[in-house]
Amino acid sequence: MTYKKKLEKIIRIARSNLITGLDTDIQKIPGCFLKYKNPILAFNKKIIDATAGNCAGYKINLAFYEAAGVKGIEALEETVKYIPANLIKICDAKRGDIGNTAEMYARAYFDKLDFDAITLSPYMGFDSVSPFLERKNKFVYILVRTSNKGADDFQLLKSGRKRLYEVVAEKSLKWSKDGIGFVIGANHTKDIKKFSSLDIPLLIPGVGAQGNDLTRLIGAVKGYLYLINASRSIIYAGDKKDGEKVFLEKVSESCGKLNAEITAIKKLQ
Amino acid sequence: MTYKKKLEKIIRIARSNLITGLDTDIQKIPGCFLKYKNPILAFNKKIIDATAGNCAGYKINLAFYEAAGVKGIEALEETVKYIPANLIKICDAKRGDIGNTAEMYARAYFDKLDFDAITLSPYMGFDSVSPFLERKNKFVYILVRTSNKGADDFQLLKSGRKRLYEVVAEKSLKWSKDGIGFVIGANHTKDIKKFSSLDIPLLIPGVGAQGNDLTRLIGAVKGYLYLINASRSIIYAGDKKDGEKVFLEKVSESCGKLNAEITAIKKLQ
Repeated sequence: MTYKKKLEKIIRIARSNLITGLDTDIQKIPGCFLKYKNPILAFNKKIIDATAGNCAGYKINLAFYEAAGVKGIEALEETVKYIPANLIKICDAKRGDIGNTAEMYARAYFDKLDFDAITLSPYMGFDSVSPFLERKNKFVYILVRTSNKGADDFQLLKSGRKRLYEVVAEKSLKWSKDGIGFVIGANHTKDIKKFSSLDIPLLIPGVGAQGNDLTRLIGAVKGYLYLINASRSIIYAGDKKDGEKVFLEKVSESCGKLNAEITAIKKLQ
Repeated sequence: MTYKKKLEKIIRIARSNLITGLDTDIQKIPGCFLKYKNPILAFNKKIIDATAGNCAGYKINLAFYEAAGVKGIEALEETVKYIPANLIKICDAKRGDIGNTAEMYARAYFDKLDFDAITLSPYMGFDSVSPFLERKNKFVYILVRTSNKGADDFQLLKSGRKRLYEVVAEKSLKWSKDGIGFVIGANHTKDIKKFSSLDIPLLIPGVGAQGNDLTRLIGAVKGYLYLINASRSIIYAGDKKDGEKVFLEKVSESCGKLNAEITAIKKLQ
């Protein structure tokens, strides 16, 4: 099944466009998880149990696992395996390197860990992306217009009538018929409007902890193959001093609430 | 000691501008290393022993370690510790992410693993770089003009009189007085000439396996704070069927020869 098909299916069946970000930081998880052999893994598994019914999948930001060394990588590998097969698994890697190195990353995250999709940085061009596109049924989200402040430093650079990020979007779409989508921050509703009119999946970070208005965002999206990402506002919804049960109830509630909000706003469109 | 001071010192004392790339791929290392508990780590240690006298340090490309999973990360951690303290340790990561994620990467590679420098992608702008610059005596090599074919896809984009990569170089230099250098591929001698006239360290990949003429390259460099990287042509100099001793002699010879070549060409300038 192609990634687009899997995405379409889960969005329809689970009635969710929400993707939960597992940005798990050992310094932020509640004390009650520290008793486990691998607290990051234990935390992730219980977060997945508490949220799997209310989202379309998970985005895993590698930085948080790399920061925890060997134990982090163990947690990463086991977390990916633990995610239910019908849900979307996105590797938030933002890599970008020469061909033979890109091949190693593709091996790591598509062949070994079986993520469905990966985020990549466009700066090094086609051969930094092509090894990922060669993998059947896998998918690449190209960083187009990011949600952070520094995004304007280079992405807005004007070349003739176009900005750098517009050139990136147009050129990268030509690299693959079914394998390319875009990362566009929730704060860039104009760009979301513009690029989601094409039949391409968007990955939209920047709601939750990063703020940004959900109604405005969903009003801007056309098509339905989009995923809205929230991380910190869901997985740290509880208090650090909460017991496990209370903490996970708050996580579940926060995820369910955000998912219901998205659904309600979609119906109003 | 600042990074620039450390760099200056090692280039002067070791009489070397060569940095060896530890792009260690389990599928490429000779059979004689497979008997070790962690073949990648055993290989790296012996490669370091065989080359430390003929180079200024090591560049470690994370992709190769990530592709090997938990064992790869173990090898990475132990390899960094094994490199002699006076030599340069560059983390070839090419990362670039929003502030709180960049902070996690800085924690992973500067605080925990004690690399001296890291390579970063500029696409997401200042806040994707600043957490690294906040670490004292650490250093960032920004991807400016890369050696691969796809480099032209976006780096050459013209904005007014300038290309994207020139804008990246000029703007990123303003982010820090002593913390920023550039990655420029060995094939881009014009750009090497242009940017090394400034007092900024260059990291130059693309000799060895990637080809490119050493005389032309060294003729183009001004200043002396540059590092020329070779990876595959050194660490896989031996034959896959060689015994350990023979293989490592070839590695040592290949590294020594390239280092002597660089020194000889420098003297002719």
